[in-house]
Amino acid sequence: MVKQVRAQVTRDTIVDGAAQVFGRRGYGLASIADIAEAAGVTKGALYFHFPSKDELARAVIDEQHRRTMDAAGVVVAEGRPGLETMVLLSAVLARQLLTDPVVQAGIRLTTDVASLDDPVTGPYRDWLHTAERLFRQAVEEGDLRADLDPALLSRVVVASYTGVQLVSETFSHRADLLQRVRELWIVLLPGILASDRRDALGGLPELIR
Amino acid sequence: MVKQVRAQVTRDTIVDGAAQVFGRRGYGLASIADIAEAAGVTKGALYFHFPSKDELARAVIDEQHRRTMDAAGVVVAEGRPGLETMVLLSAVLARQLLTDPVVQAGIRLTTDVASLDDPVTGPYRDWLHTAERLFRQAVEEGDLRADLDPALLSRVVVASYTGVQLVSETFSHRADLLQRVRELWIVLLPGILASDRRDALGGLPELIR
Repeated sequence: MVKQVRAQVTRDTIVDGAAQVFGRRGYGLASIADIAEAAGVTKGALYFHFPSKDELARAVIDEQHRRTMDAAGVVVAEGRPGLETMVLLSAVLARQLLTDPVVQAGIRLTTDVASLDDPVTGPYRDWLHTAERLFRQAVEEGDLRADLDPALLSRVVVASYTGVQLVSETFSHRADLLQRVRELWIVLLPGILASDRRDALGGLPELIR
Repeated sequence: MVKQVRAQVTRDTIVDGAAQVFGRRGYGLASIADIAEAAGVTKGALYFHFPSKDELARAVIDEQHRRTMDAAGVVVAEGRPGLETMVLLSAVLARQLLTDPVVQAGIRLTTDVASLDDPVTGPYRDWLHTAERLFRQAVEEGDLRADLDPALLSRVVVASYTGVQLVSETFSHRADLLQRVRELWIVLLPGILASDRRDALGGLPELIR
């Protein structure tokens, strides 16, 4: 039992070290030696837990996605209207991207297309599913145009958000991320809000702080 | 003179080989040996032209961006209205992404944040500039809402497009790219078109083929 706890602690330490190195160098340039050093473990201990760099990267993505979905779950559970929830989720992920090295690394690895043996699509699928459900709810609640296709809108929003955070990282190391996410909604909302909700909900981007 | 021509041919061959390898493996995992082999030159010849992997990657991005801007320039020169031109440019880049290995590699390297010593922002800046100019023209032409901020809109569109092509690569190796670019405009247009142009211009996404 103590052994198991110790193994879990070592594993967590390695994932944190891997996140530091992947976040800074990307998948291809990260080395096992650098990760072992960042985690303060031997290469032997590292290989015992993660036999390949690919598995290490997937562990970082899994841990990032777990943290992000946990934080998202808290917001969803508050039971706000679907559109407001979706705007708040975009802020939750942005704040994690600003503060949590594991989230920074996980998102970076997820967008590091095809460096892994198979591209990682699971987190995208979860986000597409969540967004589609919330947009469908928002149509039912009368906040979004009744003729919108929630699946199509979720594809556009998830992909656009992916680009917004990537370009923000490129230009400002994410210093402008909250403002750029706000701008995405400022452009999107007038075209998707139901016409009788434009005045009431046009200020939603201001929730992103 | 003959020597210069020969050197240019070798250089172009290396850039093509580098594009193959970077496009498949990303920056970090691409090796100089693989690139020399793909280009059919010795490692010595390769180092003579490009002393580092960083310089090779930048040469691929430069060549990609030159090809993209050349193709964009042809469309801009046709003198269509600003918004129609912008939609057509999004299709031009998508078609290059579907067919040209140098463009595929250049865009991938550009989004491979921070793997290079400095992130590459030049191509983004050119697109932001072009988009802002065309959106401003579209406001003046009465196609876009008069209260739109063309700079803000260009930031959102360039970043969103970046994400759309990245997610398309992740999910389908770009097989669905044209449809996803069409969907981006389908979502954006209702919110940015001037109200009296919605019927006339709502079909613009159909230009993307």
